[in-house]
Amino acid sequence: MRKVGELLLGGCARVWKSVHMASSGVARRDPLANKVALVTASTDGIGFAIARRLAQDGAHVVVSSRKQQNVDRAVAALQGEGLSVTGTVCHVRKSEDRERLVATAVNLHGGIDILVSNAAVSPFFGDIMDVTEEMWDKVLDVNVKASALLTKAVVPEMEKRGGGSVVIVSSVAAYIPLPDLGPYSVSKTALVGLTKSLALELAKRNIRVNCLAPGLIKTASSQKLWMDKEIKKTLQISRLGKPEDCAGIVSFLCSEDASYITGETVVVGGGTPSRL
Amino acid sequence: MRKVGELLLGGCARVWKSVHMASSGVARRDPLANKVALVTASTDGIGFAIARRLAQDGAHVVVSSRKQQNVDRAVAALQGEGLSVTGTVCHVRKSEDRERLVATAVNLHGGIDILVSNAAVSPFFGDIMDVTEEMWDKVLDVNVKASALLTKAVVPEMEKRGGGSVVIVSSVAAYIPLPDLGPYSVSKTALVGLTKSLALELAKRNIRVNCLAPGLIKTASSQKLWMDKEIKKTLQISRLGKPEDCAGIVSFLCSEDASYITGETVVVGGGTPSRL
Amino acid sequence: MRKVGELLLGGCARVWKSVHMASSGVARRDPLANKVALVTASTDGIGFAIARRLAQDGAHVVVSSRKQQNVDRAVAALQGEGLSVTGTVCHVRKSEDRERLVATAVNLHGGIDILVSNAAVSPFFGDIMDVTEEMWDKVLDVNVKASALLTKAVVPEMEKRGGGSVVIVSSVAAYIPLPDLGPYSVSKTALVGLTKSLALELAKRNIRVNCLAPGLIKTASSQKLWMDKEIKKTLQISRLGKPEDCAGIVSFLCSEDASYITGETVVVGGGTPSRL
Amino acid sequence: MRKVGELLLGGCARVWKSVHMASSGVARRDPLANKVALVTASTDGIGFAIARRLAQDGAHVVVSSRKQQNVDRAVAALQGEGLSVTGTVCHVRKSEDRERLVATAVNLHGGIDILVSNAAVSPFFGDIMDVTEEMWDKVLDVNVKASALLTKAVVPEMEKRGGGSVVIVSSVAAYIPLPDLGPYSVSKTALVGLTKSLALELAKRNIRVNCLAPGLIKTASSQKLWMDKEIKKTLQISRLGKPEDCAGIVSFLCSEDASYITGETVVVGGGTPSRL
Repeated sequence: MRKVGELLLGGCARVWKSVHMASSGVARRDPLANKVALVTASTDGIGFAIARRLAQDGAHVVVSSRKQQNVDRAVAALQGEGLSVTGTVCHVRKSEDRERLVATAVNLHGGIDILVSNAAVSPFFGDIMDVTEEMWDKVLDVNVKASALLTKAVVPEMEKRGGGSVVIVSSVAAYIPLPDLGPYSVSKTALVGLTKSLALELAKRNIRVNCLAPGLIKTASSQKLWMDKEIKKTLQISRLGKPEDCAGIVSFLCSEDASYITGETVVVGGGTPSRL
Repeated sequence: MRKVGELLLGGCARVWKSVHMASSGVARRDPLANKVALVTASTDGIGFAIARRLAQDGAHVVVSSRKQQNVDRAVAALQGEGLSVTGTVCHVRKSEDRERLVATAVNLHGGIDILVSNAAVSPFFGDIMDVTEEMWDKVLDVNVKASALLTKAVVPEMEKRGGGSVVIVSSVAAYIPLPDLGPYSVSKTALVGLTKSLALELAKRNIRVNCLAPGLIKTASSQKLWMDKEIKKTLQISRLGKPEDCAGIVSFLCSEDASYITGETVVVGGGTPSRL
Repeated sequence: MRKVGELLLGGCARVWKSVHMASSGVARRDPLANKVALVTASTDGIGFAIARRLAQDGAHVVVSSRKQQNVDRAVAALQGEGLSVTGTVCHVRKSEDRERLVATAVNLHGGIDILVSNAAVSPFFGDIMDVTEEMWDKVLDVNVKASALLTKAVVPEMEKRGGGSVVIVSSVAAYIPLPDLGPYSVSKTALVGLTKSLALELAKRNIRVNCLAPGLIKTASSQKLWMDKEIKKTLQISRLGKPEDCAGIVSFLCSEDASYITGETVVVGGGTPSRL
Repeated sequence: MRKVGELLLGGCARVWKSVHMASSGVARRDPLANKVALVTASTDGIGFAIARRLAQDGAHVVVSSRKQQNVDRAVAALQGEGLSVTGTVCHVRKSEDRERLVATAVNLHGGIDILVSNAAVSPFFGDIMDVTEEMWDKVLDVNVKASALLTKAVVPEMEKRGGGSVVIVSSVAAYIPLPDLGPYSVSKTALVGLTKSLALELAKRNIRVNCLAPGLIKTASSQKLWMDKEIKKTLQISRLGKPEDCAGIVSFLCSEDASYITGETVVVGGGTPSRL
């Protein structure tokens, strides 16, 4: 005689099964089940929303940012939601930090399937004529070079799993530069190109590389932008985006549903002008 | 005393509930539940895959194409999978057909939330110098004007529901024209612009408009392309896409997850060159 | 004994010669010498400025527009400046008019080297939901189809001369659609694609095809735009362009200096956002 | 009684005058008369062709590159053609070299009107996974940062002259990355963005900033590319470009004729796919 528990599970199983058959399998419900994801700069704002969403969609997520206390707070918050999230400090500009981030994921979960490269700085707000060589170094190092090198660091792990998915976070400023944010805008344009180059080179390793270009999203770090009327005018939008508005597309791009999408940038900008 | 049936449902409910809490509600599992979707040219190929996917994701879908027998076959196939699909004949170039398509959806399901404008012709394959005025008329009428007018026809219905989502199907040929497919390529470029214009104009009505640009997808109608070595060289791809590769992104763009995405074109091209 | 006249000419010749040697020949001074150019919609505004410039740079120019009196006035004005300019009425939407335009140039000057397709209409200013089927027909017919068919009509003449150059006039609205000018914007996006397709197809005939995308230029016909504060805000420019600002680049694109440039669009927009 | 010499000059003057009247003045013949131009990496290839052309069009040109012997050879060759050309060694990555370059022009000619930033390296040819941190540093430093900083260095001099014109040399690889040239391609994409940002910021100083994106040009340094069949296939061109094909457009962009063109990139690629 079957126990009630079995009956319950059996009943659920049947319900699930019909869902699964209609939607070609479990992927539809938990599209990232058992995937391991690294998300940089993920203790706040857009990165945090992405980390949460990847975990909600089934992934084991390693969050990271530069400060231990921010990592601890983010991990606690997401674990409190029942999500599989751990964290480590990582300053992406440092080679040893990038390696430790990779090692953390591999040690905890046995590999890496997903990288979301979100860390970026904007070391300067003002006239491009006042940007020093050091500021250029910083913005190109953190925003461009670190994305390239972090991708390089995860590729061997992705290859061991038969492939993977990288999402680089750029900005609409990549297409329409923001006034007073010259170096930031330039670095974000470079990321659109980096996405193309990495996609071209990594296709043979079954690794897809795509890019997210958020518009004006209401976060703590972008406050100077969305409080600036001139910039809001530039972006021609009425309402600001929310960090969550950026999360679904990243999960999608990392899922099986996006398996023929690589090298592409998706703008999440509420209709702000970007490109054709 | 509760019946086993109630126990079963109760047990399932608890499982569902934990899923839903983690993923912000039922939207994650059935992202298009109760939505009504029109998909043109949906009895075969990419349109058929999109229609099936929207239905799998919870929508009531009205399929259509120019021949009754194709509509019947598609509807039978999708209903056979337990999906909520009906159909009607529609030649999108004809005003009365567009109106009947809208009326069918409204009569059956009380309104329209989603339009996927997929109908397109390529009336000519060859040197652009051999294209006649009639061929230009046909390709601009069916591919561009009908998309604009069909959108116009559904907008009032979407407004009654508080908003909606339109996805126009273009092509990578919009960005990198295909040899011997001049007028087709031009019409697909126009659709990228139409997407931008409609998004700009319809934002105030809470209607989002996005665009899908498939690369070389293995369908019956594109056989001439993917059999053509010159064109495959142009596209720089190794493997062809499948119609299903185009379906997930359309469902995503129509879902709540994409609520801050409008006016954008997403290329599903396996890395074929398109644009930054 | 040489006459003074010969001395004069000889002296000039020496001066000219040194100029020519430094600048690789006479092309630098009169880059379009002996070329025959058709310019549509050239009795006013941007088209008139282009016609004048091509003639100043050495070409025999055939101006045209829909009204005889406008043609007469433009021809008189340009002939009054000592330029080689004639004219004919041409409504580009009409097949017989396109043929007469071609015949006029061939009869007068023995062939055609340059076509500037500038004729365009904007049959509507307002909400895209109010655009009728007839308006779509008109804007696609005049702006897109007629450009394609006029190019088709001149190609055989260009082939007889061993090649030629086509410039299609689009708009920045091709990239960033203008509010209340939906169909116009869509047609201009299509022209960017038409340029690419024609360039691809006509390269083997040694015909180059490029495109000009003016921003907000102060002309009579664009008054509604540059008087509209909303649109000026969209374009993010401080000063308006002048028709002459569009003329130099067209002459350049038709000259030998541009012989490796084809399929390209050049924006003349004073820094207004367009594309990367 | 007037002397023959006067007659000659007078006669010439009349001839010139009629030319000038037709072509709105001397600008047409010597469009860069009395302008002072800096061109980096200009002792060979594209940079050399640009330097020659700017000088042919009337400018005083300061050529430069990293080796004294190359500078000497280029200066001798161009002076031998009767052009106003001087030179100095400049490794653009070095702050003191950039300053010396600016000082050289100012000391010799009293100011700077034109900067063509052409210096670039491609420190690596191969799989992007083999690119080291040092290679990224080098390519981003030389190609991107040095262009920004050299522009910054010339701006005060241009302001003293009431304005100026900058042309940055990118590549079609900015739009369609070249296989095995990942970092180079990324740096060239960044330059398209840098052009946009600089144009936006420098407009108020009456300085225009534009960009040249050459396709596959037959030079010594690009031999690896144009000998590579895979890359030629990527670029879909039949014939290679010549350095001179890139020179006319740069002169044009620096001339009065381009006074309403800023922030734009012009592709000189013989029809190779780039962007809409």
